[in-house]
Amino acid sequence: MILTVTLNAALDITYRVPRLHPHRTHRVTDVAERPGGKGLNVARVLASLGHRAVATGFAGGGTGAALRALLTQETDVADALVPVGGATRRTVAVVDESTGDTTQLNEPGPTVSPAEWHTFLGTYRELLGDARAVALCGSLPPGVPVDVYARLTRAARTAGVPVLLDTSGEPLRRGLAARPDLAKPNADELAALTGSTEPLRAARDTRRRGAHAVAASLGADGMLLVTADGAWQAAPPRRIAGNPTGAGDSAVAGLLSGLVEDLPWPERLSRAVALSAATVRAPAAGEFDPAVYAELLPGVVVTDRPTAA
Amino acid sequence: MILTVTLNAALDITYRVPRLHPHRTHRVTDVAERPGGKGLNVARVLASLGHRAVATGFAGGGTGAALRALLTQETDVADALVPVGGATRRTVAVVDESTGDTTQLNEPGPTVSPAEWHTFLGTYRELLGDARAVALCGSLPPGVPVDVYARLTRAARTAGVPVLLDTSGEPLRRGLAARPDLAKPNADELAALTGSTEPLRAARDTRRRGAHAVAASLGADGMLLVTADGAWQAAPPRRIAGNPTGAGDSAVAGLLSGLVEDLPWPERLSRAVALSAATVRAPAAGEFDPAVYAELLPGVVVTDRPTAA
Repeated sequence: MILTVTLNAALDITYRVPRLHPHRTHRVTDVAERPGGKGLNVARVLASLGHRAVATGFAGGGTGAALRALLTQETDVADALVPVGGATRRTVAVVDESTGDTTQLNEPGPTVSPAEWHTFLGTYRELLGDARAVALCGSLPPGVPVDVYARLTRAARTAGVPVLLDTSGEPLRRGLAARPDLAKPNADELAALTGSTEPLRAARDTRRRGAHAVAASLGADGMLLVTADGAWQAAPPRRIAGNPTGAGDSAVAGLLSGLVEDLPWPERLSRAVALSAATVRAPAAGEFDPAVYAELLPGVVVTDRPTAA
Repeated sequence: MILTVTLNAALDITYRVPRLHPHRTHRVTDVAERPGGKGLNVARVLASLGHRAVATGFAGGGTGAALRALLTQETDVADALVPVGGATRRTVAVVDESTGDTTQLNEPGPTVSPAEWHTFLGTYRELLGDARAVALCGSLPPGVPVDVYARLTRAARTAGVPVLLDTSGEPLRRGLAARPDLAKPNADELAALTGSTEPLRAARDTRRRGAHAVAASLGADGMLLVTADGAWQAAPPRRIAGNPTGAGDSAVAGLLSGLVEDLPWPERLSRAVALSAATVRAPAAGEFDPAVYAELLPGVVVTDRPTAA
């Protein structure tokens, strides 16, 4: 199975309003709820691709119960979330139907106690015994040590399980030092980490900081992959319009599934790019349009990039 | 005891953000939850005034469970809510800390089935046996007949229990025909009902439509009361700045408590006006500042108004 870790899982709530007027009262016309958080989205896409996906992390309170019920009812993802006393955070996306724009409100998440954190570490180590790869995804809830991804990366490497790291800021910086197999920052995260807005230079720098390979998502420009064996860039055969939410999570699923299927790097990259574009055409994060994916995959153009400056 | 009915109860969620930027992503800095819905606010204020208050209506799902837990933990209101299969709605108030303004998002509420509606009617009739007054408050969830307040008013009148009706639109229009003892529209609701923006004329018209008495809340101008025995207007001794949310609910609690204490009409009106103003100074609906209430009450000026045109 493939393990995904979501320390700050969320109950994602989407509200549709005819038009958003700041400082007024709105009757919400449609309410949708789904399990949220980057690692859960990755696990959903992996399950849709036919992989056995197990999700761990934390869930608690009424919102955590709602998240777990939706995960079981609506996905093929196995639930290995660890209970916490605090309530799982909500994210509220308010879609303005007059423009299609979304205003996002993200709760901070429950504070995790040292005992809960300890229980999670035990569960994580046990799950690693059965994992062919692990993805460490997203932001941290309060109470979790900032070097958590370094610790989880070391534990996975000790267990011989390849690690993909997808986070930002200080947790990314610390996590890289533990030498994950692959880091997947986006252009903004790369720039924040390295100070360089030139993706190839920044990706190389990120490898020097510890990642064995770096896959940088560049929005509509596709994706850049820098490894010990070569560097490649790939883009979808045509521009895809839609909602980019979750595109990065689908890219992670593409890279991970390619890894466990032992595909060559350029094929993993093509899969990530096509899945990412097919997600832009789907209504929600963690979902992709399979017809768009099948159509785009053969047309993804992969070009060689120089591996050293 | 005093019974309050909240057919469309809510879990009220308040988010604080440093500044609301439409179409961007926000990290919420503070999350607060409380039991919401007009009848629950009225019951809270009644309990704070020392009355035994019982709240009925519907609650369901994880949000309903959260609402009931908060009601029990944080208030002296007795919980007689009837379970429904659908989830209690949420309301989300987003407070922009840079301006103090609030953007409000209200979910529609769960659809109530005929069987659930029938169960509620049984509970309501039973509770009437012990009630000295009943308040029928707020909007209707989907599935509840639009003449619900007419039916509940007739049942209360049959049981000899005085009825206060606080709603709007078609449920108000239909409810009035069943001759409630007191209706409490605000100026906008009065105008929508009668077509008149002149409160005294509109309140008289509302009495002709069936209400024995009409208490119209006029915002900072206080309150107008038109009864068979006379008409009065009252305003607080000074302008009170603050958040008007819940001020109308506190006015209802003031009128109801005055009714069961058998106070003369002008004293009920003074109490409603002082409570309303003291609520503007409190942080949340269903709460009032007791010191402000005690200070304002003796200073409320009540003036006679002509009872007929």
